[in-house]
Amino acid sequence: MTPRLLGVLAPVVTPFHPDLSPDAGRLIEHCKWLLACDVGLAPFGTTSEANSLSVSEKRELLERLVAAGLPRSQMMPGTGCCSITDSIALTRHAVSHGVAGCLMLPPFYYKGVTEEGLYRNYASIIEAVGDQRLRIYLYHIPPVAQVGISLALIERLLRDFPGVIAGIKDSSGDWENTRSMIDRFSRGGFDVFVGSEALLLANMRAGGAGCISATANVNPEAIGKLYADWASPDADAAQARLNEVRTTFQKYPMIAALKQTIAQQRSDADWARLRPPLTEMAPASAERLQADLTSIGFSPEPTTAVAS
Amino acid sequence: MTPRLLGVLAPVVTPFHPDLSPDAGRLIEHCKWLLACDVGLAPFGTTSEANSLSVSEKRELLERLVAAGLPRSQMMPGTGCCSITDSIALTRHAVSHGVAGCLMLPPFYYKGVTEEGLYRNYASIIEAVGDQRLRIYLYHIPPVAQVGISLALIERLLRDFPGVIAGIKDSSGDWENTRSMIDRFSRGGFDVFVGSEALLLANMRAGGAGCISATANVNPEAIGKLYADWASPDADAAQARLNEVRTTFQKYPMIAALKQTIAQQRSDADWARLRPPLTEMAPASAERLQADLTSIGFSPEPTTAVAS
Repeated sequence: MTPRLLGVLAPVVTPFHPDLSPDAGRLIEHCKWLLACDVGLAPFGTTSEANSLSVSEKRELLERLVAAGLPRSQMMPGTGCCSITDSIALTRHAVSHGVAGCLMLPPFYYKGVTEEGLYRNYASIIEAVGDQRLRIYLYHIPPVAQVGISLALIERLLRDFPGVIAGIKDSSGDWENTRSMIDRFSRGGFDVFVGSEALLLANMRAGGAGCISATANVNPEAIGKLYADWASPDADAAQARLNEVRTTFQKYPMIAALKQTIAQQRSDADWARLRPPLTEMAPASAERLQADLTSIGFSPEPTTAVAS
Repeated sequence: MTPRLLGVLAPVVTPFHPDLSPDAGRLIEHCKWLLACDVGLAPFGTTSEANSLSVSEKRELLERLVAAGLPRSQMMPGTGCCSITDSIALTRHAVSHGVAGCLMLPPFYYKGVTEEGLYRNYASIIEAVGDQRLRIYLYHIPPVAQVGISLALIERLLRDFPGVIAGIKDSSGDWENTRSMIDRFSRGGFDVFVGSEALLLANMRAGGAGCISATANVNPEAIGKLYADWASPDADAAQARLNEVRTTFQKYPMIAALKQTIAQQRSDADWARLRPPLTEMAPASAERLQADLTSIGFSPEPTTAVAS
């Protein structure tokens, strides 16, 4: 049986070599650290620059993660592409490698597409993959993909593919939307993850499943702790503290700021690199970020505890 | 020397088999008809559902077009993807097959990216392909890609890669933008194509290079004729007539309406098929389209003149 994913996952940032090829070694090391902080792995998400990677690069990286012995029960790789043939190929590959779930963007090039067209996209992928182990987490991120996942689409997919449609990552930032998803679908085992830890406590109180958040790449332990202790009296204070860190990162281009912070934590400048069209932080911005983080007393968790 | 592309090109619609695999045979037949109407080939554009195809599907289709003996001097395939490795692979492949130019979308997943990031995308592709035959036509289509090509970006690319940056397809629909591109860059041999024949006459009068338009898939002869005769006294009337046809198609989902019309012209229902997330027209809509076209006296050009 495919294990159920719950809790906090990081859309794992993807390190690159100087020639911009993916750096599997540093990726594995980072994943081990996240797992040691009780944070699961959602590689090939928006924060992972997944859409800046080719299908074969994503396949190879997943194979490297699995070959390194990282727990597939903690993996929810992104496998949704613009092209349905790419989505099928990546999803089939991920399922055959035993991952617990696949996080699937809708095809995002054409805008204003119909619910019927999005339904057919997911239905065709499910039928083509044809594997009982498949668990799909829909990925709703309208600010970036522009193409979203409506409640009506979820309802139709759940009705036709119960057991396969396992949940959603809601990165709309619209709490009313998240709450509607929980209210309407979670009783049937549909797991609703929020796309930011800023909504983690609200999500847990409402019956959600956890969060999949960019900042879990740099602040995993604290976010994981709020997930574990959300029912405790200290939860609101812990949430406020998480928000302070998140808000600081949000003042900067998020992915560049996360990579810059990891580079700083590990004294490893290679981590700061991004693929076009994203760009690394200018030195002056990087210094301001560092100063901002210091001013709120954010101390990156130790990275040396995990042998690579 | 790479031949210069001028005139009218069709972003060739991609036919699909019942299993949704690309149908190279029907594609070649359609391309031959377009060429017989003096319209060049821009396969793998937005209208081609290019982003619904995998890299290997696009490579194979281009190989089939070349193997069929279609003139590479009349080909401007789309090779711009979200992933820079995909863009490099496709562009290298197209150039190695001797196409006259490559039409390149910017990477379109991340929104609000910097000019520097987009510059690096194109610069890295040019350097990685490293082939003197490469001619890039930038693809500005903000309504769909959301990520656009600014005048400042064109200026910088032209300065650093003269001879490689050959022109642009402006699908903004904003004539002031098109005119600015012509005024600022066309003297240096930068060819500005409009993305719709509705602006063809204006473009030719201002010094533009032609148009690359979806509706050239169904109305190639008339559009090609206006390009040839744009300086004649009848040009305004011809433009008005083209606009009438274009406006009729614009009342429907464009790609589905084009394919439906081709299916009707050729009595070949297989042509009406689309890949998700796009969907074919419902029968009632298809009938309305047909009635609308009949009411304006639009008679599809004969398709039997070209042996397949």
